[in-house]
Amino acid sequence: MRIDNLQYANWSEKIFRQMREGGVDAVHVTVAYHETFRETVQNLERWNRWFEKYPDLILKGQWASDVDKARETGRTAIFFGFQNPSPIEDDIGLIEIVHTLGARFMQLTYNNQSLLATGCYEAEDTGITRMGRQVIKEMNRVGLVVDMSHSADRSTIEAAALSERPIAITHANPFEWAPALRNKKDDVLRAVTEAGGMVGFSLYPHHLKDKSDCTLESFCEMVARAAERYSVSNLGIGSDLCQDQPDSIVEWMRVGRWSKEIDYGEGSVTAPGFPPMPGWFQNNLDFGNIEAGLRAVGMDEAEVAAVMGGNWYRFYQENFVPRG
Amino acid sequence: MRIDNLQYANWSEKIFRQMREGGVDAVHVTVAYHETFRETVQNLERWNRWFEKYPDLILKGQWASDVDKARETGRTAIFFGFQNPSPIEDDIGLIEIVHTLGARFMQLTYNNQSLLATGCYEAEDTGITRMGRQVIKEMNRVGLVVDMSHSADRSTIEAAALSERPIAITHANPFEWAPALRNKKDDVLRAVTEAGGMVGFSLYPHHLKDKSDCTLESFCEMVARAAERYSVSNLGIGSDLCQDQPDSIVEWMRVGRWSKEIDYGEGSVTAPGFPPMPGWFQNNLDFGNIEAGLRAVGMDEAEVAAVMGGNWYRFYQENFVPRG
Repeated sequence: MRIDNLQYANWSEKIFRQMREGGVDAVHVTVAYHETFRETVQNLERWNRWFEKYPDLILKGQWASDVDKARETGRTAIFFGFQNPSPIEDDIGLIEIVHTLGARFMQLTYNNQSLLATGCYEAEDTGITRMGRQVIKEMNRVGLVVDMSHSADRSTIEAAALSERPIAITHANPFEWAPALRNKKDDVLRAVTEAGGMVGFSLYPHHLKDKSDCTLESFCEMVARAAERYSVSNLGIGSDLCQDQPDSIVEWMRVGRWSKEIDYGEGSVTAPGFPPMPGWFQNNLDFGNIEAGLRAVGMDEAEVAAVMGGNWYRFYQENFVPRG
Repeated sequence: MRIDNLQYANWSEKIFRQMREGGVDAVHVTVAYHETFRETVQNLERWNRWFEKYPDLILKGQWASDVDKARETGRTAIFFGFQNPSPIEDDIGLIEIVHTLGARFMQLTYNNQSLLATGCYEAEDTGITRMGRQVIKEMNRVGLVVDMSHSADRSTIEAAALSERPIAITHANPFEWAPALRNKKDDVLRAVTEAGGMVGFSLYPHHLKDKSDCTLESFCEMVARAAERYSVSNLGIGSDLCQDQPDSIVEWMRVGRWSKEIDYGEGSVTAPGFPPMPGWFQNNLDFGNIEAGLRAVGMDEAEVAAVMGGNWYRFYQENFVPRG
């Protein structure tokens, strides 16, 4: 079973076919960065058109059983998530509404301070806000997973403690291995995984040691060390693959409508666009390389299977269903 | 089995308890008159709060199987519907979105001309519009039932012909019995029922012979004659019960935001509010009176059961599920 728990590609029949050819059974796709509720619904409408147009390649994923359905019918289950809480605006009632529409992960922040928590690029981190506490409780109730990939450390540790259900860092790597602002320090990774939460390893060059030049071996060694430290059952893949996206998209991701000035995020004035992906992970055809790499660094078959999809599958089973 | 296929009450624990006491297994409730998409979602949020607060009395109805679930657990299944297409605005993609959120009936018009068809109060009826044809096709695809209760005759006959799945008149009576603008002429009722569609008989006094003074016998005789003419299997109840609503609500229903001048609709300057319900149908406790009345005019047990809920149940089974 192969599950990639974060992609934001410029979706096309080509990419859906690559998912099939690459044996990817489920993908968690981003449907909102800075979008309001109504704008997010428009993005869901686009997905509905793709589901209607490519019923032999993809299906809408709502529950873990949809991954089984995808495997049985040779398709890929598409699960929706938000990288920012903008789709729920200031309205806690929208949490159940977006879950009904299929959302399964929501980041409490995207780099900046939000109504709910502090993002990883802010100078000060004041933790989970008053509304944030209410929102986590409601997300727990309906089965919308708290994702802290772009959040600051204290906010993440507090979210892991406040949430009654496990949370996730869907796409990031250990700071110790690659000291990017977006990567996660040991105490953060411990807080999340010790509460049963998941960490999805990112293949986005800005999160990799040596960026685009990162070797497969270095990446897989990092995963193996993390498995020793945080338990292999809490780890998966969240590639952050942004295949075929024009550079205008990374600008929307970084700046949205919140600034008139350009913010380069993890890029820079000399390298403002999407960085080139490592040669061994270009697209959905390349998950086999990671599997082989994990074996090469000494992980056994059960461990490789867990990291490549089994763990996310179990996490989906336990965390998408509303509380009775 | 008792199913009431149209109510718009001022919802409260009292009414939910009356539904249980009255043995009502399912109710189709109105969640939009003139609301935009976002406003409709706010109404759904209110329902979510009621489902959370009264889990022992009501549950959200999505499929016919939810009526079974309600019966097995002693609750009432609540199905959502719109009396106007305003929630889909000008966006055909919203049809699948509102179906995902639970909408199962949508009127193409509410008294006035809409983007889709002509309402029953307009001077001229030009039938189904260009967008209307596209919308009917999409409603057929996703399993959202076309409801023509407040539409004009030609538009209704055209909708019955254009729609590939049966349509409904959820709440109206034969014009022949009570000549109100909102009631339906013989050719309209034939067009709908001959295509497998349903007619729900209304208990709203403006649709009754002798209005609030209508007798139970007169109402039940009308049902029995309709059963002879249009086949008993196409008939049900759509009471249009507006229990406990203040008169400000009937003004919103009639005028929305489309007129600065008051429009009395079926009322008048001397009787602008909700008319008093007939003594034998005051609330959800009174469905037994109708059952007894139908028996008294000579309908047999199977016919009574079909009209009181069995027909709507079958219609739900056949028409709420998306086409594969």
